Amino acid sequence: MAIIVQKYGGSSVGTPEKIKNVANTVINKVKSGNSLVVVVSAMGDTTDDLIALAKQITNNPDKRELDALLSTGEMMSSALLAMAIKDLGYDAVSYTAYQIGIKTSGQYGKSLIDDINEDKIKKSLDEGKIVIAAGFQGINDKGNVTTLGRGGSDTTAVAIAVKLKGVCEIYTDVDGIYSVDPRKYKNAKKLDEIDYEEMLELSSLGAQVMHSRSIELAQKYNIPVYVGLSNSNIRGTVIKGVDTMNLESKPVTGLATSDEDVAITVKDIKNDINIISNLFESVADKKINVDMISQTAPIKGKVNVSFTIPKDDLNECLNILKSYFENKDQIDIDEDITKFSIVGIGMKTTSGVVAKMFKLFRENDITVKMITTSEIRITCAIKQEDKMKTISIIAEKFNL
Amino acid sequence: MAIIVQKYGGSSVGTPEKIKNVANTVINKVKSGNSLVVVVSAMGDTTDDLIALAKQITNNPDKRELDALLSTGEMMSSALLAMAIKDLGYDAVSYTAYQIGIKTSGQYGKSLIDDINEDKIKKSLDEGKIVIAAGFQGINDKGNVTTLGRGGSDTTAVAIAVKLKGVCEIYTDVDGIYSVDPRKYKNAKKLDEIDYEEMLELSSLGAQVMHSRSIELAQKYNIPVYVGLSNSNIRGTVIKGVDTMNLESKPVTGLATSDEDVAITVKDIKNDINIISNLFESVADKKINVDMISQTAPIKGKVNVSFTIPKDDLNECLNILKSYFENKDQIDIDEDITKFSIVGIGMKTTSGVVAKMFKLFRENDITVKMITTSEIRITCAIKQEDKMKTISIIAEKFNL
Repeated sequence: MAIIVQKYGGSSVGTPEKIKNVANTVINKVKSGNSLVVVVSAMGDTTDDLIALAKQITNNPDKRELDALLSTGEMMSSALLAMAIKDLGYDAVSYTAYQIGIKTSGQYGKSLIDDINEDKIKKSLDEGKIVIAAGFQGINDKGNVTTLGRGGSDTTAVAIAVKLKGVCEIYTDVDGIYSVDPRKYKNAKKLDEIDYEEMLELSSLGAQVMHSRSIELAQKYNIPVYVGLSNSNIRGTVIKGVDTMNLESKPVTGLATSDEDVAITVKDIKNDINIISNLFESVADKKINVDMISQTAPIKGKVNVSFTIPKDDLNECLNILKSYFENKDQIDIDEDITKFSIVGIGMKTTSGVVAKMFKLFRENDITVKMITTSEIRITCAIKQEDKMKTISIIAEKFNL
Repeated sequence: MAIIVQKYGGSSVGTPEKIKNVANTVINKVKSGNSLVVVVSAMGDTTDDLIALAKQITNNPDKRELDALLSTGEMMSSALLAMAIKDLGYDAVSYTAYQIGIKTSGQYGKSLIDDINEDKIKKSLDEGKIVIAAGFQGINDKGNVTTLGRGGSDTTAVAIAVKLKGVCEIYTDVDGIYSVDPRKYKNAKKLDEIDYEEMLELSSLGAQVMHSRSIELAQKYNIPVYVGLSNSNIRGTVIKGVDTMNLESKPVTGLATSDEDVAITVKDIKNDINIISNLFESVADKKINVDMISQTAPIKGKVNVSFTIPKDDLNECLNILKSYFENKDQIDIDEDITKFSIVGIGMKTTSGVVAKMFKLFRENDITVKMITTSEIRITCAIKQEDKMKTISIIAEKFNL
């Protein structure tokens, strides 16, 4: 008898009617002889509504109390799903984070799961119950409620699957992982499978299908994760460890774009490693996420340094820069950038991907403002007006 | 430094604006040098809204899951109040039932508080924090969330006051306890104080100001409980042990009426104690709350038995009666009754109250259908059309 851990996102449990549909789907899996643990997100826009409520109290809600508030959304949906299942004649029980000992550490609003006490879940499964677990939440070592961040219920589901050595299925409002966001490129192909690392890169690059931590956790314990629509014959995508040697010469798996960043260039800095490293340390201290750092070769002992940061952090970052560089003219801001990335573990073994991409950029008059690469990804900053054109050209050439 | 346990009802925390008002009121008490524990109900109609949501899933929600669902209302309001206080520069922390070990026993939906782990509350108070506790909820010995029933937050507040040896203040949308419901008798007098037992009788008779269990608990530990408006100069009522010997010959403290019951009479029952006690046992087994039992003297070995039950339980009760008495004509139902009660611990030492009341009834053509008495109360079943007239006459005569 297999243990299946299913996660249903907020839109799947958005109304009482939809919760009843999920109850039926879950019961069908049980009828086929499986033990089911179901992790639920908060209903529909509940989390946003709760945040809006907190903002009516204060613009800067206390983080502990905000987490305590937000965690109620998942408690509600899990109790409602358990009711719906029991109403259909099957035994079910809803558990909050403290009831099944989901231990967390780290900051409020973006905690990590350290451990889960699986005994209580197992006991309930052994008693023939369907277990409903509230996602997104945990309890830290001080007994405070903490949340895992947006999409954190994915991580709850994977963590439970790890502890129970079960199968993990994430049901969401998309039918799988695509090589390119289908809203941006209509011929985008759905992937039957994708490697953990590729998925991680795509997630961090703006493909918001899955909570990044959930993929890291699945990778660490080598748990395959199915992503797709519930109650549908459409086949989704399995995220798993893909053996690169077996790949049929497809170096690029997917592409992602993001318009959320801004590029900053500081000109004519003295080429002193201390100045530059102190600068980035100061920025990191403020939890500003720096991406795409590039530095020009020194001319007369001076260099230009460019980097991208999230737009929201621009003012804070400029304040830091002003403390380093008195001359305003040294600092240049470019808000007209799109981060364009291609990802594929095949790049590890295939050379010439950068060259092929640059040739396409040149042929199509696409200006590359910055470029950074890792073993399995290439990211370019391009003009926002070139975004859609670039997506089409690259997706077509690399068969995405 | 006094420890004050305040409870704010749903209407006092019904909007973000009102929550901010409560935060200010609480902070003012702290400024006067007190340690504050605040128990909150769910915001406004939240509990009703959650029940309505559950009813959209099933007409008969599982009781464990319904309690899990309903408990989220108080978690939300307590987190929001803690945020509001912190925003005003004072330290605060919200606690759920499991965080401060509110242990419960008994049925879902109407559990009793067995104990509270006061150490965590005391520690937070010692650290200078204002403690916000989610009312209405507890954790039973299986680790399940249970609720205390409508108005249960009153009981949470009194129980915490008992454990901390503090003062208890219940803030609600009425300015105190009245001798008669002011909506029914405009000259009703507000009481400066009322005895625990009187308040208990009035509560059970339909004066829904306080959760009955909270009064029992206050009485048991002799904790005075203030009831009134928050943020107002209007003096409320203190519920406490009143020394009857000091009462200035006022035998009746208050009156209450209820239209929620129906009277059932079973005629010509064989005067056999077994039949009658079995019957009431069967009714009690179905958790039907029987009140006002009366039995006529036997004629030719047969008696008539009358009793009242809540209207909602009528069908279930009739099913039980049918299993005892085949002849339908034996059973008579009277839906036209109002339960009219007068209450006063002064009755213990003052005789002739019943006689005085009956004289007034006779003079004013008020028909008494049934009557039951206890040491401190007299309850009559009268016609519904006589209700308002009876209230005026009795309230005036007994100076209520």
